[in-house]
Amino acid sequence: MTVFVRSGDRAADQLRLVRITRGFTIHAEGSVLIEFGQTRVLCTASVEEKVPPHKRGSGEGWVTAEYGMLPRATHTRSDREAARGKQSGRTQEIQRLIGRSMRAVFDLAALGERTIHLDCDVLQADGGTRTAAITGAFVAAQDAVDQLLAAGTLAASPIRGHVAAVSVGIVQGTPLLDLEYIEDSACDTDMNVVMTGAGHFVEVQGTAEGAAFSREEMNALLLLAEKGIAELTALQAQALAG
Amino acid sequence: MTVFVRSGDRAADQLRLVRITRGFTIHAEGSVLIEFGQTRVLCTASVEEKVPPHKRGSGEGWVTAEYGMLPRATHTRSDREAARGKQSGRTQEIQRLIGRSMRAVFDLAALGERTIHLDCDVLQADGGTRTAAITGAFVAAQDAVDQLLAAGTLAASPIRGHVAAVSVGIVQGTPLLDLEYIEDSACDTDMNVVMTGAGHFVEVQGTAEGAAFSREEMNALLLLAEKGIAELTALQAQALAG
Amino acid sequence: MTVFVRSGDRAADQLRLVRITRGFTIHAEGSVLIEFGQTRVLCTASVEEKVPPHKRGSGEGWVTAEYGMLPRATHTRSDREAARGKQSGRTQEIQRLIGRSMRAVFDLAALGERTIHLDCDVLQADGGTRTAAITGAFVAAQDAVDQLLAAGTLAASPIRGHVAAVSVGIVQGTPLLDLEYIEDSACDTDMNVVMTGAGHFVEVQGTAEGAAFSREEMNALLLLAEKGIAELTALQAQALAG
Amino acid sequence: MTVFVRSGDRAADQLRLVRITRGFTIHAEGSVLIEFGQTRVLCTASVEEKVPPHKRGSGEGWVTAEYGMLPRATHTRSDREAARGKQSGRTQEIQRLIGRSMRAVFDLAALGERTIHLDCDVLQADGGTRTAAITGAFVAAQDAVDQLLAAGTLAASPIRGHVAAVSVGIVQGTPLLDLEYIEDSACDTDMNVVMTGAGHFVEVQGTAEGAAFSREEMNALLLLAEKGIAELTALQAQALAG
Amino acid sequence: MTVFVRSGDRAADQLRLVRITRGFTIHAEGSVLIEFGQTRVLCTASVEEKVPPHKRGSGEGWVTAEYGMLPRATHTRSDREAARGKQSGRTQEIQRLIGRSMRAVFDLAALGERTIHLDCDVLQADGGTRTAAITGAFVAAQDAVDQLLAAGTLAASPIRGHVAAVSVGIVQGTPLLDLEYIEDSACDTDMNVVMTGAGHFVEVQGTAEGAAFSREEMNALLLLAEKGIAELTALQAQALAG
Amino acid sequence: MTVFVRSGDRAADQLRLVRITRGFTIHAEGSVLIEFGQTRVLCTASVEEKVPPHKRGSGEGWVTAEYGMLPRATHTRSDREAARGKQSGRTQEIQRLIGRSMRAVFDLAALGERTIHLDCDVLQADGGTRTAAITGAFVAAQDAVDQLLAAGTLAASPIRGHVAAVSVGIVQGTPLLDLEYIEDSACDTDMNVVMTGAGHFVEVQGTAEGAAFSREEMNALLLLAEKGIAELTALQAQALAG
Repeated sequence: MTVFVRSGDRAADQLRLVRITRGFTIHAEGSVLIEFGQTRVLCTASVEEKVPPHKRGSGEGWVTAEYGMLPRATHTRSDREAARGKQSGRTQEIQRLIGRSMRAVFDLAALGERTIHLDCDVLQADGGTRTAAITGAFVAAQDAVDQLLAAGTLAASPIRGHVAAVSVGIVQGTPLLDLEYIEDSACDTDMNVVMTGAGHFVEVQGTAEGAAFSREEMNALLLLAEKGIAELTALQAQALAG
Repeated sequence: MTVFVRSGDRAADQLRLVRITRGFTIHAEGSVLIEFGQTRVLCTASVEEKVPPHKRGSGEGWVTAEYGMLPRATHTRSDREAARGKQSGRTQEIQRLIGRSMRAVFDLAALGERTIHLDCDVLQADGGTRTAAITGAFVAAQDAVDQLLAAGTLAASPIRGHVAAVSVGIVQGTPLLDLEYIEDSACDTDMNVVMTGAGHFVEVQGTAEGAAFSREEMNALLLLAEKGIAELTALQAQALAG
Repeated sequence: MTVFVRSGDRAADQLRLVRITRGFTIHAEGSVLIEFGQTRVLCTASVEEKVPPHKRGSGEGWVTAEYGMLPRATHTRSDREAARGKQSGRTQEIQRLIGRSMRAVFDLAALGERTIHLDCDVLQADGGTRTAAITGAFVAAQDAVDQLLAAGTLAASPIRGHVAAVSVGIVQGTPLLDLEYIEDSACDTDMNVVMTGAGHFVEVQGTAEGAAFSREEMNALLLLAEKGIAELTALQAQALAG
Repeated sequence: MTVFVRSGDRAADQLRLVRITRGFTIHAEGSVLIEFGQTRVLCTASVEEKVPPHKRGSGEGWVTAEYGMLPRATHTRSDREAARGKQSGRTQEIQRLIGRSMRAVFDLAALGERTIHLDCDVLQADGGTRTAAITGAFVAAQDAVDQLLAAGTLAASPIRGHVAAVSVGIVQGTPLLDLEYIEDSACDTDMNVVMTGAGHFVEVQGTAEGAAFSREEMNALLLLAEKGIAELTALQAQALAG
Repeated sequence: MTVFVRSGDRAADQLRLVRITRGFTIHAEGSVLIEFGQTRVLCTASVEEKVPPHKRGSGEGWVTAEYGMLPRATHTRSDREAARGKQSGRTQEIQRLIGRSMRAVFDLAALGERTIHLDCDVLQADGGTRTAAITGAFVAAQDAVDQLLAAGTLAASPIRGHVAAVSVGIVQGTPLLDLEYIEDSACDTDMNVVMTGAGHFVEVQGTAEGAAFSREEMNALLLLAEKGIAELTALQAQALAG
Repeated sequence: MTVFVRSGDRAADQLRLVRITRGFTIHAEGSVLIEFGQTRVLCTASVEEKVPPHKRGSGEGWVTAEYGMLPRATHTRSDREAARGKQSGRTQEIQRLIGRSMRAVFDLAALGERTIHLDCDVLQADGGTRTAAITGAFVAAQDAVDQLLAAGTLAASPIRGHVAAVSVGIVQGTPLLDLEYIEDSACDTDMNVVMTGAGHFVEVQGTAEGAAFSREEMNALLLLAEKGIAELTALQAQALAG
């Protein structure tokens, strides 16, 4: 069996070059530009001293996310969602996923009655925008929390550990880590995996684009994801230490 | 470790009573009421002799789904989406999932330039509405296709095999098959699994509601799902033979 | 003059077979499936312990209705209103009619500051869905009120009498009671009549689809409606006694 | 029994002063300001040389209406529907009524494949805006048709007769013709009647605001309406002759 | 160079016939029909005893405007914004301009915590609708304020001076005052100027429709605007004295 | 009179540091990051080989713009317009201004039947986002046109000259060029000026935020704007030569 050859001679189990730039913009409490190869997502964390209705009076905070894509982040221009007057199903699905992933590592009681809004806006897309968004949003959230700690607003961190995400998939029979756009378009099976720094699963979303996949294929993909996320977690730590 | 006790002494790896009633309404080409215990979903299949713009002139057909919940299908009344003027992110996520699941077993070229619309409306909810919807929609789609075959509109079936879905989850440490509402509310990990009759995966969507889950827990859940789906596939076949 | 022959040899002044099934779903305070022949409407009554803004602090309650039609309740599939993002003018007109009809027999002060929501969802349509909805919603409302009385929340019933509705029309010169779809499509004049159990009018809505109608024709139609509603009121009472 | 005294000593069966001003604005093919006392509605008829999708290729034309109320046409300012982003249920109900009423006197085949749009905008409201709108829209439509006839676009008129409308109601036990706002607010029963010049009914919409009404009351109201509409039809003819 | 000849032999620096009719409708606190030639705008001022959220508790009032155009105010019918479900960018731009212009002459603290809503609805359009709206809205606002003064609600007027507006433009090389529709369509440069009675600028919005314009052309246009606004201010004063 | 002191000792007639980075993202035909001090706007130009309906079959092309602001581009987070479901009046006003400004230097016939979409998205805001957007969009449009020329799609450039924009205003009596946010908030008069490379005006939009402004003040502002735009035009040329 021939193996799929990746651009730039990337190995099947190799991440693209990941870069995490903190303080990318000046106003937000956390502002991170994350790059997975050519994919670039700006993740900002904004702290608001109030909570949505379902949390009012609960003593707990809330962490939520919104996702957007600039119209020409992609190969061909797509419509601006603000102009069309509604967010697509895909956008809503992604921002719900980011929000759940962030909340998985937050102790909402320790956050107190405030909200952290994570805005993930794709400046340039080349596959894996949602996993880059989750990985970058964590760093932005950490920066915002550190600022609350530094200001004495919070006495202890409500963050219980890292969270990061990566895509895996099977292209022409080969399981690959961190798909770029051209691979994503060609893949039979596509899986987004969100894990904690401790190596546990937060979300697993696998979809057979072409033929359904076997249990063995799934096992191979999960192994790749575990490897990738361990590396991403280390990169997050390194960026936060920088 | 104590094991979670299910209502009606149901075993951890046991489905609820599943009933599939074909011909529940008279106008649709396929009309199935599917019940997973107290969860009741009406699935209709409607054939339309045209396709959406992205398929026009392709020679291929399309299979798509919409999902809705009657306002008082649930314990407390929820707003009517038509009155609010938009479908929630949850609704859109579910109907996209149903559509992808159905297309996984359809040969769109063999369907020809026509659309099958699957409408899944929840009359009564008690957990697992999306998995019941997928399982029932398959039967409705089969009925619609059989009608096209009987009429000579299609010479051969575009359906390549069964598709069914079930939820699994971990409640108080116990992996359970086919969660009802009370279990779903209490669970730490919730996974929806869609599989073909041949035992391959179409979709896997696992979410840690509380603590993240380990690889071993995931394996236990996938085993349960495989068992449940084999049974659901048999029930579909039995209903279609009836 | 030849007289129009109805399906199943139904007489011109004869209702279709009417069936009223209480407790059709389990969550709502009142849940009634009403059938006028092949027309089937699920009517649920939900009690909410608050009122809309215009009644706040008034000491009075509110009774309101929403109406929907499943996409494939009809011969050909119609768009889902939630997906289109708005309710049609027809839908709004019908739900306003149902709400007014219910309020006509309610003493809102005796109800106290709470709301009864009546959701009328058409599972299968064959003409007369709005009149079936009104007739069924009354029974669901009565069940909800009985539950409030049984719980001691209300000391006396705020319901002052029955309300029911029926359609009448002139088809090929023959005045008919309770039109089914095929008759409705062919009729020259269509009238929906809502009356109390005491035989008074709550709403009369007559429309000339083809030629305008004379005073004599109107009188003939009103007579038919009075007969039909007396029978429907008796069927409601029988169902509630069951 | 004491009889309700109307403002300006108007008799119970007397219309308000009705004024019909043709050519009120310059651009429209028909432009009529109609006044029923203090109620003033601007009705324009616009001819468009195409038809909506459901009439394309049918050889038939279409007549349709839209209704609006300026925000300060009323005692207290109401929200602008364009700013709120949707038309109320009441607005939609009224414009559907106007459209059906106009079509009742139009031979759509004789109109040919073109559309007449009737825009009825209330400049000042004092009760009876929908009935004034129908009565004025007929005159505007006639002016537009006369222009098509004069231009030779149409060889024969597609208008088969007059149509006009009036409200009737029971206030404090007294049946009244043509209710003004203060009467409308106080009435127990409110009925809008649309009739042809030949004295046949096009629409009858009666609603019990308070107590349900008897057959005798209905007969009294219909008599009043017949009288009022005969007078309105004469006024239309007089205006068109002017 | 030949000079553009205007309809009715109007001079280049001459306003159209301007008519200001106060009390055009009966309900509003101020109601003015303003005509600039064939352009007719109904401007009403409504007083509401509350303020929008951003002014609550500030002790200050608010003055705001909405703008609309009847569907057949124009040569060919345009869609009704309420039916389309949103206001166009042009409408929003105009109503924001009117609001800012009115606030420029209002002392919001002296108004107290109440809102004046100015509704400017175009009954007939022939160019210059926004400038007519501003000029008329000022008169309506003055009438509303006078009523508040007469009632003793306000002790002193919050209005600091007149505000009026006019359009100027260059058509075929000739600078013209107060463009009518046919001139507006043909012009190279179009400028709307809003000024106070004291001769200062509130808004200047110049747009090159064709070729960009020079500083000299701009100066010529501003001179024309100053002349026109001085005349409009005098006409406002005369109408208010009437 | 004391003169307002600007941050960083900037002179009253001095632009902020302007940086123009071409090729900021990879997919668009033109992609420019423009910075006016801390204000950063990403401007992309996308070529589409079709035109909107009003240009179809005309032989002419179209140039249009959309504007957006990332939620946390500002000091405090603002709502995402896509999530709210509509663009604000301010957004629409700005994108209409950008579109008109670009079209002022385009020969639409020479462009042929294609559209250039300019997307201006504010990554970071510190005053002057619309003027930065126009200045940057011109460079992006030039890059897109150069690509069409290089590919032989166009034989000659449809661009007739430069266009750039700058804000000017009066703060505490001092006329200032290129206002940053803190100055903009404090200013009495704010004017946005769009000019061609040849020194002619395309748009002038001046607004008195506080007191109305005199003719002399306006002249002072226009002088500042002319100076600023001459410098911006030179910077554009330099960036395009780079």
